[in-house]
Amino acid sequence: MKLVLATRNQHKVAELSRILAAAGLDAEVVDASAYPSVPDVAETGATFAENALSKARAFAAATELPAVADDSGLCVDALNGMPGILSARWSGRNGDDQTNLELVLDQVADVPDDRRGAAFVCAAALVLPSGEERVVEGEIRGRLVRVPRGEGGFGYDPIFQPDGDTRTTAEMSAEEKDAISHRGRAFRALVPVIGELLG
Amino acid sequence: MKLVLATRNQHKVAELSRILAAAGLDAEVVDASAYPSVPDVAETGATFAENALSKARAFAAATELPAVADDSGLCVDALNGMPGILSARWSGRNGDDQTNLELVLDQVADVPDDRRGAAFVCAAALVLPSGEERVVEGEIRGRLVRVPRGEGGFGYDPIFQPDGDTRTTAEMSAEEKDAISHRGRAFRALVPVIGELLG
Repeated sequence: MKLVLATRNQHKVAELSRILAAAGLDAEVVDASAYPSVPDVAETGATFAENALSKARAFAAATELPAVADDSGLCVDALNGMPGILSARWSGRNGDDQTNLELVLDQVADVPDDRRGAAFVCAAALVLPSGEERVVEGEIRGRLVRVPRGEGGFGYDPIFQPDGDTRTTAEMSAEEKDAISHRGRAFRALVPVIGELLG
Repeated sequence: MKLVLATRNQHKVAELSRILAAAGLDAEVVDASAYPSVPDVAETGATFAENALSKARAFAAATELPAVADDSGLCVDALNGMPGILSARWSGRNGDDQTNLELVLDQVADVPDDRRGAAFVCAAALVLPSGEERVVEGEIRGRLVRVPRGEGGFGYDPIFQPDGDTRTTAEMSAEEKDAISHRGRAFRALVPVIGELLG
C-alpha cells in the first residue's frame, strides 16, 4: 500500500511510517516533496479537522493516492482554546516559533497557576481518491510553564508541560515525545481506519 | 446619592453621570482619582464580571460608598471570544492600543469575511458597603474590518464596525458611540439596579 502524507516535514513522515509499521501495516509513505505541483492549500478552515481534510483532499485529488494530512496546535484554556488553528501564525503571518511562544507567555503572564491548563491537539485526515474520507483527533493535556525550558521539539514545546511529567515536551527525546504526543495519538488512531479502508 | 466609579477615566465618569441624570437619578459620581490610597486591583478574574466585581468591591470597602466598576473588551468570534478580558494587554503587558489592534488584524488576516464577527462586551458591577452586589452586561455586535478607519474612540474602535452601520466606532462622534456602545448599554442596565438598591 502506498500513502501520500501532505507535508514536507520529514519528521512527520518518519513518525507515520514507524507507527504504521508497528501496527503491522505494510505501507510506503511518500511526502509532499514528491509532488511539487500540488499547490499549497490555504489553512482557512475553522477547525483542525477542516484544515486536515482540505490538505488531504488536495493531495488525494492530485496524486490519485490515499492521502493523509494533519493539522495541529496549542489550545490554551485561559485563551478560550486559542492559538488553536492559528498556532503557527499567532503573532502574525510572519511570526516565528520564538515570537509566537513569547506572545502566548506574555498574554497569560497574569493568569494564576491553577488556570494555566492547555492541550496540544492534532487532527489527522485520510482521504481516498474515491472521495471517501475520515478524520480523527489526538490530544495531550498539560499546562503552560512560565519560563521556556528545553532545546528539543519545535513550536510551543518549550512552554508545555504534560500532565504527570515535570519536563516540558522540549526536554524530552523525540521518541519520548512521539509516544505521548497529540500527533502520535492521532496517527495511531488513524491506523485502524487505514486498515479498514485500505488493508 | 453619591457613587464612586472605580476608574480614573473622565470619559467614563461623564458617561455614567449623563446616563444617571437622563434616568432621573440624582447622583453625584466621584472617581478613583479622589481616592489615591485605594490600591489598583489586579485584573486576574476569568470573566469581565469577575474583574468588574473585584474593582467595585475594593472601592466600596475603601470608601464606604456604593461603588461602580466596569470591565470590557473585544470578543472576536474567530479567536473564540478573545482578546476578551486580555484586550488591553493582548500583545503583552507593555502593549499599546495600536500594537494590540494590529496583532488582532494580523491574527485574523486569513479569516474570510463571513467569519469576522465580533462583539464589544462590558460588565458593570455595583457593590454596596453592606456587601450587596450586582453585575450586568452590555454588548454590541459587529464585525472586524481589514483596514483601520477613524480617529475617534480608543482601543479597538478603528477596526470594529457595528452591525447595521458602515462606519467603525472610531468614525462616530462620542455621543453616537455612547448611544450604542457596550459600556453605555451596561451602564443603562445598571440604572434600575441603582434605583432599586439606592433610590
